[in-house]
Amino acid sequence: MSKIFVFGHQNPDTDAIGAAISFAHLQKELGKDVEAVALGAPSEETQFALTTFGLVAPRVITSVKPEADSVMLVDHNEFQQSAADIAEVTILSVVDHHRIANFETANPLYYRAEPVGCTSTIILKLYKEAGIEVPKAIAGIMLSAIISDTLLFKSPTCTEEDVAAAKELATIAAVDLQSYGLDMLKAGTNLSTKSVATLLDLDAKSFPMGDKNVRIAQVNTVDIAEVLERQAEFEATMASENAKNGYDLFLLVITNILDSDSELLVVGEPKANVEAAFQVTLTDNRAFLPGVVSRKKQVVPPLTESF
Amino acid sequence: MSKIFVFGHQNPDTDAIGAAISFAHLQKELGKDVEAVALGAPSEETQFALTTFGLVAPRVITSVKPEADSVMLVDHNEFQQSAADIAEVTILSVVDHHRIANFETANPLYYRAEPVGCTSTIILKLYKEAGIEVPKAIAGIMLSAIISDTLLFKSPTCTEEDVAAAKELATIAAVDLQSYGLDMLKAGTNLSTKSVATLLDLDAKSFPMGDKNVRIAQVNTVDIAEVLERQAEFEATMASENAKNGYDLFLLVITNILDSDSELLVVGEPKANVEAAFQVTLTDNRAFLPGVVSRKKQVVPPLTESF
Repeated sequence: MSKIFVFGHQNPDTDAIGAAISFAHLQKELGKDVEAVALGAPSEETQFALTTFGLVAPRVITSVKPEADSVMLVDHNEFQQSAADIAEVTILSVVDHHRIANFETANPLYYRAEPVGCTSTIILKLYKEAGIEVPKAIAGIMLSAIISDTLLFKSPTCTEEDVAAAKELATIAAVDLQSYGLDMLKAGTNLSTKSVATLLDLDAKSFPMGDKNVRIAQVNTVDIAEVLERQAEFEATMASENAKNGYDLFLLVITNILDSDSELLVVGEPKANVEAAFQVTLTDNRAFLPGVVSRKKQVVPPLTESF
Repeated sequence: MSKIFVFGHQNPDTDAIGAAISFAHLQKELGKDVEAVALGAPSEETQFALTTFGLVAPRVITSVKPEADSVMLVDHNEFQQSAADIAEVTILSVVDHHRIANFETANPLYYRAEPVGCTSTIILKLYKEAGIEVPKAIAGIMLSAIISDTLLFKSPTCTEEDVAAAKELATIAAVDLQSYGLDMLKAGTNLSTKSVATLLDLDAKSFPMGDKNVRIAQVNTVDIAEVLERQAEFEATMASENAKNGYDLFLLVITNILDSDSELLVVGEPKANVEAAFQVTLTDNRAFLPGVVSRKKQVVPPLTESF
């Protein structure tokens, strides 16, 4: 029972998996009995990164007990994005780069959040502060996380610190940042072979807003039109997910990673809040959002504001 | 409107005032347009420290707008312990050593919490990370905050990092740690001249627990019996404060800073949760809590647990 689990959010992206692996390695070096785990299987993008650097995906758990009674969270803090029994275990630490909400502890803890583009950028600082060297494979997965979260530095969430960290990690990992980065992002855009249900769950998070429950999914692509060929099927599945899970509103953000634009598809109510948030008129339940690529910085804040 | 307010919690103690002064100085050195303010006047203990080191108490505010629209919080995060309009302004950063609860932001922020005895211990780290020197007077108020929060290292909240930071700051401030520390703590125990209402408000915080609103005040003394001479008056005032402010339960923790014990006085309901939390039986609404000196570590967690 003394073991400590380290994990990122549900529907893990490359940062959620990569930060768990790299933070767990740091904690092991500092003498802690930790295990990196995940709240879901790696995406194709994440698997591409893991394979490139010879790493194994963390095993998947859904709840912490009875295997462990304390945890270290990375890349999230909101309980509804975490393990099913998160409220019943001791949270020893959090390393994150998101807003803080729907989070509380009974005791003081170690909490390190910075408004940077990627958790792994903060974790690189923690290695330096502890005087621990970053191994080559760990550097590789941390670099992959930064590329993923910042869309190769194109996201408005990207800071100078993220770029500097990525360059440093690319040197340790011995890869060319640009070419590796594009290869990795493209590995994650193979959407045509995936079911609509899978795509809607790939990178989706729930956000309580006002008294509504809002689900926001995001997919990356190099061809928005190709994704929209299945619009009717998406809408039907989003509607049934709303009914099944009690979501009031389901937003799908389809992001073109090359052009850095997104198309928004909306099912549920209140749609008026969505139109107000982005100052658009939904046509056929859709709106084009030029320059929008970041859920955290460009989608959640205006929506939260409008609720 | 570009100014940023830096402040600690309501009913400020020496750490709330000292951390605001020292963190504001650091931010000014880093080029930010900040002003240290306070959500209340300094206690006698804090005033003793300010006078010793030639510092002026921060001016008192109750709400942030219209003077500023963004803030940096120190030594607290819970909204009910903060400025009246905290939910309407942008929280840029938090430096704290308490549990996280009743706190949320719309945007990512800088959050630095560590489970150490005093916020000023963390702020000393931030000076070092930024490569900024701590001036003599600032070192003096930071040292005073550590002595206050750890009761001169006797509190179970005190860590090795707090002791090391205090020693380092005492050298910069050019004072003898032990003799200055005792003088400062004693300056805060002059209770006999203060009204019961003043004592109950000196260092008091509210905590939502379950569906109850719990008020916990603490006073430091060198003579518990002297404080209890006014028990009947305390109880009457605590009952009227409960009625006036919607507190369900009011706990007064009377701490002997020399013996490191406390006497608990309880008004309101459910008293059974208090008895269960501390495994005591209240007699005449009181119980002796041997070895208990820390509200944060020895009072709030068992109470939270029992609710």
